[in-house]
Order: sequence, then C-alpha cells, then structure tokens
Amino acid sequence: MIKFKRLVVIGVGLIGGSFALALKRAAIVDEVIGVDRSDAALNDALRLKVIDRAHSISDAPDFNEIADLVLLAVPVGQMAATLALLEPRLGANTIVMDCGSTKQDVIGVAYEKLGKKISQFVPAHPIAGRETSGVTSADATLFEGKNVVLTPLAENTADTIARAEDTWRACGAKVVSMTASAHDAVFAAVSHLPHMLAFALVDEFAARPNAKSLFSFAASGFRDFTRIAGSSPEMWRDIALNNREALLTEMDAYLAKTQHLRALIANADAAELSALMARSRDARAQWLAGDLDGFRDESA
Amino acid sequence: MIKFKRLVVIGVGLIGGSFALALKRAAIVDEVIGVDRSDAALNDALRLKVIDRAHSISDAPDFNEIADLVLLAVPVGQMAATLALLEPRLGANTIVMDCGSTKQDVIGVAYEKLGKKISQFVPAHPIAGRETSGVTSADATLFEGKNVVLTPLAENTADTIARAEDTWRACGAKVVSMTASAHDAVFAAVSHLPHMLAFALVDEFAARPNAKSLFSFAASGFRDFTRIAGSSPEMWRDIALNNREALLTEMDAYLAKTQHLRALIANADAAELSALMARSRDARAQWLAGDLDGFRDESA
Repeated sequence: MIKFKRLVVIGVGLIGGSFALALKRAAIVDEVIGVDRSDAALNDALRLKVIDRAHSISDAPDFNEIADLVLLAVPVGQMAATLALLEPRLGANTIVMDCGSTKQDVIGVAYEKLGKKISQFVPAHPIAGRETSGVTSADATLFEGKNVVLTPLAENTADTIARAEDTWRACGAKVVSMTASAHDAVFAAVSHLPHMLAFALVDEFAARPNAKSLFSFAASGFRDFTRIAGSSPEMWRDIALNNREALLTEMDAYLAKTQHLRALIANADAAELSALMARSRDARAQWLAGDLDGFRDESA
Repeated sequence: MIKFKRLVVIGVGLIGGSFALALKRAAIVDEVIGVDRSDAALNDALRLKVIDRAHSISDAPDFNEIADLVLLAVPVGQMAATLALLEPRLGANTIVMDCGSTKQDVIGVAYEKLGKKISQFVPAHPIAGRETSGVTSADATLFEGKNVVLTPLAENTADTIARAEDTWRACGAKVVSMTASAHDAVFAAVSHLPHMLAFALVDEFAARPNAKSLFSFAASGFRDFTRIAGSSPEMWRDIALNNREALLTEMDAYLAKTQHLRALIANADAAELSALMARSRDARAQWLAGDLDGFRDESA
C-alpha cells in the first residue's frame, strides 16, 4: 500500500483539490499543503478541508524538502515558472507529477527547469474535468473510473513509475501509459478540437446583430454541444498554444470533413448524407455502449 | 377552454406521441387515432395508451372527416405524400398542424397539396426533442416550458390561429410567431448547424485508422458535444436538404469563424485567443442564466 507523509498541491483548483480529497479519502496521505497565487482559493481550500496548511506562491515555501509527493495543477502556461520555483526546494525522494492536458511541451519545460532532478518527474494527465473550475468544485470522486494517462520519461525508475500509478489508482482511476507525442495527437482530436469548435460556435452567434433572437431559440442541443465552451479561457488558450501543431492538424482535418458535408448538402446527395449521419450515430452508440471492438485499430 | 373530439396523429413517434399524451393529460381531447407506416409503432402506441385506435397509412383512413385536429408528425421528406393522402379526407372544420423543423419547404408543399384547404393548415415547430426517437420515448411533459414556433399563413383565420396557439399552450408550451423565412434562418443557426457539426466530428473520428484509440480516450466533453449526433439520420437528412440555402449560409459562416480561430492559434495570438474564449464562455453563461438583455438585437 502506497503512503505519503506530505502532499504539496501547487494550484489548488478543481483538479488539485480533487486529488487532495481523493488521497485523503483513500487514507494514503497524512498532510496536504496547498500552494496557490490566489489567497481566496487557499482560504476556500482550508475552509473545505481540502488542504491542511496553505502557502501563497510568493512566500518561497521550503516544505518541498519534506514533501514526498508534489502535484503541479497549474495552467500549462504557468508550468515553467512553477517548475523553476520548485526545483531548488525539491528533495531527492520526492515524486512530482503534473496534470497538464498537453504533454510534450510540459516535458520540454521540465527537462529545462528540473535538470538532474528530471527522473523524479512523471508526466500525468487525468482525463477528468468539469465545465466548472475552482477548488469549490473539488470532489474526492472526480477521478473514479476515469483514465489517467502517464507519459513516463526514460529517466524515471520503475519504482517511481509504479508509485505514480499506484497513487492514481488509489483515486479510483484507470492508468494508461503512452508516449507524449501519441498523447498529444489523441487529445488534440478527442478533446482540444471539440473545445475549439464549441468556443467558435458561441462566439459566432454572440457576434451577430440578431444574437438575442438566436440565443432565445437555442435549446438543449445547443446547450450540450457548447457545454465545453464554459471552460476556462486561460486554460484552453494555453492548451491550444502548447499543442498547436497537433491541434492545427486536427482543425484542418475537421474543416475538410465539414467542407465535404457541406458539398453533400449543396449537391443534395441524399444517399451519402444519410449514410454519413447513420455511420456517425452508430459509431457514437457503439462508443456509449463501451463496445470499441468494431472500430479500426491500425496505427495512423 | 379548447376541446377536441378526435385528434389524428400521423406519424406516431416521439413528437406525435408526446403531443397525444399531452392533450390527453390536459383533458382536451376525447379520442386519439394514430396513423403510421409502421405496425410496430402503432402497436407500441396502443400498448402505451398513447393512441386509442390505429390505422396503417396504407389502409386509406376516412376518419379525417370526423377529426377536428390533425397533427402531421412525419419526417419533412414525407410531408408531400402525407398531405396528398390527407387532403381528400379533410373536413372543413379540421385544423391541421405539422411539427417540421423547417417551415418554408413544408409550406410550399402544403399550398401545392392542400389547395383551397390551405387556410386550415397552421405551420408549427415545437422546439423539443430528444436524441432518442420513437413512440416508446413519448412523454406528456415533453413540451412543458418549451417554445413552439408558429409561422401562420395569410390564409389562416384569427380563430384558427388562436385555436392552434391554445392547443400548444395546453401542452405547457410557450407560443412564438414569426415568418417562415425568419424561422428557417434562426434554426439553421442554432439547431441545424450544430447537428451537422456533431455528425461531422463523429464520422471524422470513426473513419480514422486509429479510431479505437480515439474513442477509448473520448470523455464527457466529447459525449455532450456529440449528443445530437445520436439523432435520426432520416430526419436530419431531410432537414439539411429542405433548409439547404439557410444551412449552407450558416456552415460557411461557421467555417470562416473556425478558420479565424485556426489563424489565431497558428499565429500564437494569445491575447485574442483568450478574448474569444472568454467572450464565448460569458455569452453562454448569460444565456444559461436566461439573461438575454446583453445580446445585440438588431435585424441582420
């Protein structure tokens, strides 16, 4: 059974707070120290007993010497500054994980900022989120049944990786390992692209002269389609820019597919139009049923 | 209080069945007769007491002489054949409404098929749906609090329009009137476009060599974004083709917006990227809060 004396969570929001609560619930951590740039977030986290002690990010905490686990749960764009702050205070036996939605960029920054301590860093991406953010949304069950993708480094020891895996499993998550580039390509498609598409749709309508009329007739289909447009602009700006190449590839593929669908409509190609829609409906139904065996499984 | 002796529902699916249940619950109809091309749907509807009597669409029902309300709840593509079947059997005091998601095309067909009886036809579009279809999903509360758009014809009498409005209000709906062209433009944007975008996304991923991997990491954001891709291919093919011009205009506007967003990412324009996302998030939050006063309200 894995066990930690002290967890330091840097970035006490939805993900960092939920991780702290999950480890507390699993009784595998004795004490949680929260670090954040926002005093309000720290006060909320203390009040909600998500953390036991708080430090503002500016008061140069030296507790990392005595922490055996550090979770970096800050927006991807703040990773460099956070790792620079962390490195001088990082004890030799401390494991560090991030939660970033992009991995190649975070790993590049980690090599640069952690230097010889890079072996202690296990890149992680829990596939769990809500459209609400902030520690007041933190939930000990957030990771239950969810995938957590690890993209281990050549420098990580087997023991370090095993401890990282056990920690996420203690949160109820399923752990999957892949390369950082495979991660970034997959999530550019299934996550980053739909977020961009949802942001684009809402902004398109909001900019129209008849926006009020459009929104007054938007209904549940629009609501669910755009749910992810309720996400944090700062976080998604960083993701878009940090996974830029893979995301642009996905946007181009989607634009081409939508142009194809447009042509089917313009040409009144009823047969292919309903075939495309039926393929889409059936694929989604298979996916919802958890039946993935009908899908192609070749490397691209 | 409005009251009908006999309602004939042609097309006993989610919408037709829910309308029958809603009028029964409101106790404003004595008897419901269901007409459908599918015996299975009719049997389900009888078993679930959605209808009291059933006729297959091929056995040339003559009950329309004695019906005082007919609801056409068939896919838009079947409207011409259904109206042709209806016209010779339509009594002089019977009100006919459709439920089509497109209005200009249905109205054109109605003028052609109903001839002098066109004054009895009140075009209607209840803004209520589910991703599940069929009479087994029918629900007496489906229209509660939902908008029903009427696009009345110059030939409708004030009394006919008032009866149509009262009927939908008895289902718990809010009634809004507008021109058919305004209807088709608004719903091309807020409904038809997102459906096309969701179908395109699922089909794009399903066609990939690594589809299995993509679907294995798709999560709740993808699920909600693509919920409307679970809709009926036949229905949405008809909608796309019957509202083609307005839908193509919307697809072009969306493609241009997405190209703009792509350029912001390609150019690493962090400031405008987060501004766009923040505008989108804020607009959606306003809409969800029911606060539409901040939106532009000029004719396009």
